Amino acid sequence: MELFSVKKSVIQKKHKKNIRARVGIMRIRGREVNTPIFMPVGTYAAVKTVSPDELKAVGAEIILSNAYHLYLRPGERLIRDLGGIHKFTGWDRGFLTDSGGFQIFSLSEFQQISSEGISFRSHMDGSAHFLTPEDVIRIEEDIGADIIMPLDIPTAIPTSYEDAKKACSTTIEWAKRSIERWNKGKKEATLFGIIQGNIYKDLREKCTKALTDINFPGYAIGGLSVGEDKPTMYEILELTTRHLPDEKPRYLMGVGAPEDILEAVLSGVDMFDSVLPTRNARNATVFIPGGRILLRNADFKNDEKKIQEDCVCYTCNNFSRAYLRHLFKTREILAYRLATIHNLYYIMNFVSKLREAVYNEQIETFIMDFKKGLI
Amino acid sequence: MELFSVKKSVIQKKHKKNIRARVGIMRIRGREVNTPIFMPVGTYAAVKTVSPDELKAVGAEIILSNAYHLYLRPGERLIRDLGGIHKFTGWDRGFLTDSGGFQIFSLSEFQQISSEGISFRSHMDGSAHFLTPEDVIRIEEDIGADIIMPLDIPTAIPTSYEDAKKACSTTIEWAKRSIERWNKGKKEATLFGIIQGNIYKDLREKCTKALTDINFPGYAIGGLSVGEDKPTMYEILELTTRHLPDEKPRYLMGVGAPEDILEAVLSGVDMFDSVLPTRNARNATVFIPGGRILLRNADFKNDEKKIQEDCVCYTCNNFSRAYLRHLFKTREILAYRLATIHNLYYIMNFVSKLREAVYNEQIETFIMDFKKGLI
Repeated sequence: MELFSVKKSVIQKKHKKNIRARVGIMRIRGREVNTPIFMPVGTYAAVKTVSPDELKAVGAEIILSNAYHLYLRPGERLIRDLGGIHKFTGWDRGFLTDSGGFQIFSLSEFQQISSEGISFRSHMDGSAHFLTPEDVIRIEEDIGADIIMPLDIPTAIPTSYEDAKKACSTTIEWAKRSIERWNKGKKEATLFGIIQGNIYKDLREKCTKALTDINFPGYAIGGLSVGEDKPTMYEILELTTRHLPDEKPRYLMGVGAPEDILEAVLSGVDMFDSVLPTRNARNATVFIPGGRILLRNADFKNDEKKIQEDCVCYTCNNFSRAYLRHLFKTREILAYRLATIHNLYYIMNFVSKLREAVYNEQIETFIMDFKKGLI
Repeated sequence: MELFSVKKSVIQKKHKKNIRARVGIMRIRGREVNTPIFMPVGTYAAVKTVSPDELKAVGAEIILSNAYHLYLRPGERLIRDLGGIHKFTGWDRGFLTDSGGFQIFSLSEFQQISSEGISFRSHMDGSAHFLTPEDVIRIEEDIGADIIMPLDIPTAIPTSYEDAKKACSTTIEWAKRSIERWNKGKKEATLFGIIQGNIYKDLREKCTKALTDINFPGYAIGGLSVGEDKPTMYEILELTTRHLPDEKPRYLMGVGAPEDILEAVLSGVDMFDSVLPTRNARNATVFIPGGRILLRNADFKNDEKKIQEDCVCYTCNNFSRAYLRHLFKTREILAYRLATIHNLYYIMNFVSKLREAVYNEQIETFIMDFKKGLI
């Protein structure tokens, strides 16, 4: 059984934009999962504030965890010895682990890259570590995720061309070593390649070409949505997906704003993850059609309405904005969960509607409704 | 329909102890609730970390909220204007509000008692307030609780006899004013009297006599479990309940340790509340038969067992000690909820078994099983 197949492609040339969207099916742990898909982030093998059954209730199919974090705590060997991440957490649907490349650079200290691997100090206790691309594959296999990512070197924006080029070359080298290591194992997890190259088009093209030559079961687009302006991001995205094979899944890492997901789906991206809906929720910011509202706001003091009038999530079914505001003002932990449930439901529902719009070739209507603040 | 009726009384003289336990029925919001009953604490109109449906799943029937806290935030008028605390929170079973006497003395600053009322400064923003017993009844009526408590003056242990006597006299005076104010209203909520008197037997007797002369629909025993030794607490308890009329419910405030609940039920107490199970849970301390365990403990690092082998709560049905420990170590908010669900389930189940033991006249067996660490 193939991991992924395209169910329908929609190619349109409208206005200035080339639409090359698609709807696909991903097979993961015996379930058929529709793409495009949004994957909630559960860095430490738990999506912050919510339980597995609440994740199912919002329609989650794949959770993203982080190999770097789990390696540090509780340790991948422990998870392996306890039967793998699905048994450990009670989440019996899909798990994807990021390699932690991005996290090593953004969280840990004293990172040093050699051709062999990365040395760094833990952001938690300062302990010294050294990881090779081979180590990371082994760690992810021990964790037992369904989809795994190779160790890569993302670069900040801006980064000089020379530095970006060097990081891109090492990322390609490490991708080769990762797939070699993976080929020697049981291949129970699916390994994706991660495309880097910063905002430099020729580097992105070169990286895409190199990784597709290696021929991964899927491709991730890394190093975007890290501070570049939106036109640049969309341009790089469009360029990259154009060079990717149709039959393989495409995963845009770390992107979760509805407008960005829309743009990326129109460029042919299938998978997304982001802390945005869950982190926003914990800061009392909840998504509604047309934007976001801050539940702490005095406007909602005696607002008996639900967060979103036509929403059927657990939170909207049971609680008013006034009560949620009260919970946030009194710092009740329940507040964080209820807002998280709504935001996850909102974004899952957004992607689901977008998927239907692509499948029914009603993309223009979807875009118009989105711009009108109806979705 | 009566608020309360005794279904069965069990009077036994065994060893050195006089057992005067009873099983009763309390009628609250159209539901028949069995007593003895444990009431989870939701100070700010929310039981920390859990949702209303989770509270129902652990068998909660009455939630205890605090008039002092809700008066300060979000304000009782707001709750009233939004349809009362049941509508505000989505909890359609019972609410009991404590007057906040205890909280004014333990949390607020610059308290000054006059015969008229109490002036104090908010523990949140330092704002100045003055509340009379009549104000407190009005506040609780605005909140819309089902059972309400009058403003009282609890005293710390130790407190001199003279000071305890004075506080006790004022508590009695205010109890009279409270019931007068309550009699003028719609009496939609049931008003209890609160017995004070510190550890002085004659004051406790005097207070009990004075309040029963006033004739309240129910009686609360306040000012215990605040640092006195257990024999003293049990003695005061036994003395107080002996002077209370059989046909009225008896509520021991702020007591939640299983051994204390057991002792109090044997002395004829019907109702309990305490932050103990919920606060302990947030500190990773969970109840099991025979004691408590600290989930952060390294012992549980790779412990695949549930918290309690024969427990059927949501947490025990789904998660291992190893995973819970991981959630606590990584400070995942989910940890606090899962531990809270277990502790509430444990204590509700404990009281439920104790109730059955009283009803079936198997108190001795229950005590033996409890001492053996089987309950």
